[in-house]
Amino acid sequence: MHVQHCIISAPGKAILHGEHAVVHGKVALAVSLNLRTYLELTATSTGKVSLDLPNIDTFLSWDVSELQLLAADSSATQEESKRLDPELLRRLREFVGVTNGNLDTRSMATLAFLYIFLSLFGSGELPSLSVSVWSELPTGAGLGSSAAYSVCLAAALLTASGAIPAPLKDAANTARWCQEDMELINSWAFQGEKIIHGNPSGVDNAVGTWGGMLRFLSGKIIPLSRVPLLRILLTNTKVPRSTKLLVAGVKDRLNKFPSIINPVLDSVDAISCTCEKTLAEMTSEPITGEHYNVLEELIDINQSQLNVLGVGHPSLDTLCRVTLTHGLHSKLTGAGGGGCGITLLRPETDSSVVLHTIQDLRDCGYDCWETSIGGPGVQQHAPPSVRGEILEHFGPR
Amino acid sequence: MHVQHCIISAPGKAILHGEHAVVHGKVALAVSLNLRTYLELTATSTGKVSLDLPNIDTFLSWDVSELQLLAADSSATQEESKRLDPELLRRLREFVGVTNGNLDTRSMATLAFLYIFLSLFGSGELPSLSVSVWSELPTGAGLGSSAAYSVCLAAALLTASGAIPAPLKDAANTARWCQEDMELINSWAFQGEKIIHGNPSGVDNAVGTWGGMLRFLSGKIIPLSRVPLLRILLTNTKVPRSTKLLVAGVKDRLNKFPSIINPVLDSVDAISCTCEKTLAEMTSEPITGEHYNVLEELIDINQSQLNVLGVGHPSLDTLCRVTLTHGLHSKLTGAGGGGCGITLLRPETDSSVVLHTIQDLRDCGYDCWETSIGGPGVQQHAPPSVRGEILEHFGPR
Repeated sequence: MHVQHCIISAPGKAILHGEHAVVHGKVALAVSLNLRTYLELTATSTGKVSLDLPNIDTFLSWDVSELQLLAADSSATQEESKRLDPELLRRLREFVGVTNGNLDTRSMATLAFLYIFLSLFGSGELPSLSVSVWSELPTGAGLGSSAAYSVCLAAALLTASGAIPAPLKDAANTARWCQEDMELINSWAFQGEKIIHGNPSGVDNAVGTWGGMLRFLSGKIIPLSRVPLLRILLTNTKVPRSTKLLVAGVKDRLNKFPSIINPVLDSVDAISCTCEKTLAEMTSEPITGEHYNVLEELIDINQSQLNVLGVGHPSLDTLCRVTLTHGLHSKLTGAGGGGCGITLLRPETDSSVVLHTIQDLRDCGYDCWETSIGGPGVQQHAPPSVRGEILEHFGPR
Repeated sequence: MHVQHCIISAPGKAILHGEHAVVHGKVALAVSLNLRTYLELTATSTGKVSLDLPNIDTFLSWDVSELQLLAADSSATQEESKRLDPELLRRLREFVGVTNGNLDTRSMATLAFLYIFLSLFGSGELPSLSVSVWSELPTGAGLGSSAAYSVCLAAALLTASGAIPAPLKDAANTARWCQEDMELINSWAFQGEKIIHGNPSGVDNAVGTWGGMLRFLSGKIIPLSRVPLLRILLTNTKVPRSTKLLVAGVKDRLNKFPSIINPVLDSVDAISCTCEKTLAEMTSEPITGEHYNVLEELIDINQSQLNVLGVGHPSLDTLCRVTLTHGLHSKLTGAGGGGCGITLLRPETDSSVVLHTIQDLRDCGYDCWETSIGGPGVQQHAPPSVRGEILEHFGPR
């Protein structure tokens, strides 16, 4: 083991603009969401490997010796991070008891952990260690919680295995890896995502790794160099929805009314491009109220466009209406049809306005957090810098 | 006088699709709204000309002899219905007391009446007659109430003067004029509109004259041959708005975000064309539920597009939300920013659903009427066929 202890975090993801349009070859902007997943890894001498996921009431522990048997035949090495090892995956599915259709969060999280752990350590003697993961992100809400988990796993296990160095230096609170190491983290996180989701786009793990903002177009992911940090409210209407059905609904509407819907997709594409340009301006010139006016107007326009595409929901209309009574602008983020929305806060938005808005949204039965978008990707934390609240979730050592 | 008595009505107007887009060279569909304005003309021997407009508490009467003085120099004849006689208009403005800025409804209605009356009768001896007009249309709500008034005036006074024949035959309840006579009615009604509005598009008087549906594109007005009669609710949110400011707002948004807004205008254009095509199908093949599904979807899409253009209003969102809880689809009609909305009713929509919806909308503080669009334009009525409720408004003879 190359580290005795480390704390790592990765952000969630929100779609700022371009959800649904991206399916039809248009630009989408994905941003990091500063609701983070935290992972603590500790080397132990218990002869056990333990995985604690308090968010989903999962506390697992295996003897190193039983895991060693699973790893025996593994030929995966870090150089093979581009594709899954089907043999190892098969053995692990059997070991974890994942049969067809049993795709619950707990099993998927366990599979991803064991796969990355055995792939990175399996060629030698397995170490005994404990991993605890706690997340501020709601799961299954389209906010990249599984990717943040996979990114944390990849960064922690790559660091522990010595494949990449721990970046944290004395006296620093947080530190990030170099570009090359982040690429390795991202590619192993993508493996985790593939195990959990089957056929992920790779956007979520890229945002979790690089943070900031990414431009996503026709399967190509381009991290954008500099974006401002934007204060937002993230609201979960908790209205369940099926992304698959919503995507199919847009496709149906497009097939039914191509002359009406195709221009709408072009318009959404232009929204993403205008937003990207505005955010770029905000990092290269003094930020003005007009920049925020434009961002707000783009949010309003895109929310209406998403209603044109048929992926709105009364709960999202309520979100927009409630926040607008406080002068704040909102749109759905992700699949729509319920799910989550983001509300832009201006730098001058008073904390009392924020608190009243949050209260009004909670009165609607929604979950609501004040957070930010555009913040850093995966990073290592010095333990004192991690808020007590989060350390507490890792439980007693 | 060629008739001793006649009752004439003309419908209001609603924009079905394309409001605002029409300003930018796209198609709009204007439809007749079966909230009608009724006019009763009676020849008298009182030596007086009287004009009763109970909707706006206006009851005026002039001696024929004083009007004869105003007419003396008039050179206007029915052949000159294409342009206003500036001299006659100047004399009438002075007579009525319309000075700059005094553009109240009462003065404008009086001016329009006297102008058409003197133009059509002024070359000979003026008759004594009484004209009463009562309307189901709210005024100033963008529903073409002034055009319906002008169309009724033109039809009644042209008929009374003998310029066109009274179309009503024995035993018929209602009758309409031939195409050529309607063109004359429309052109005199347009003069009335010019007096009242300064620079009208001509759409409102065309709808009031021809009824049904008109396609309006780049100033050209094309009546559509056959359209189905559609049941609707017409709701007036009573939120005041400035059409001028709303039109300017769309232009500003277009100038600010051309790449975003131009495709939206194209999309709205396609909505109008798709709607026109669907309505044409409904007159040439059996009407199915799918026809109504398309009409509802187009209404939802266009309402969201109008929000993209920035001409929505919370009161209109409420209208859409309330009607949707009853399974009914709504959009704003006209300028937006408050004002009026239309809600499509399906043939099978139960009357209890309609009543509950109307009640819910009235509970929001809105006015709401069940009516229809696509019905007949100007027509003459046999007195027994006019509902008692309406005759009552004409007061005792």
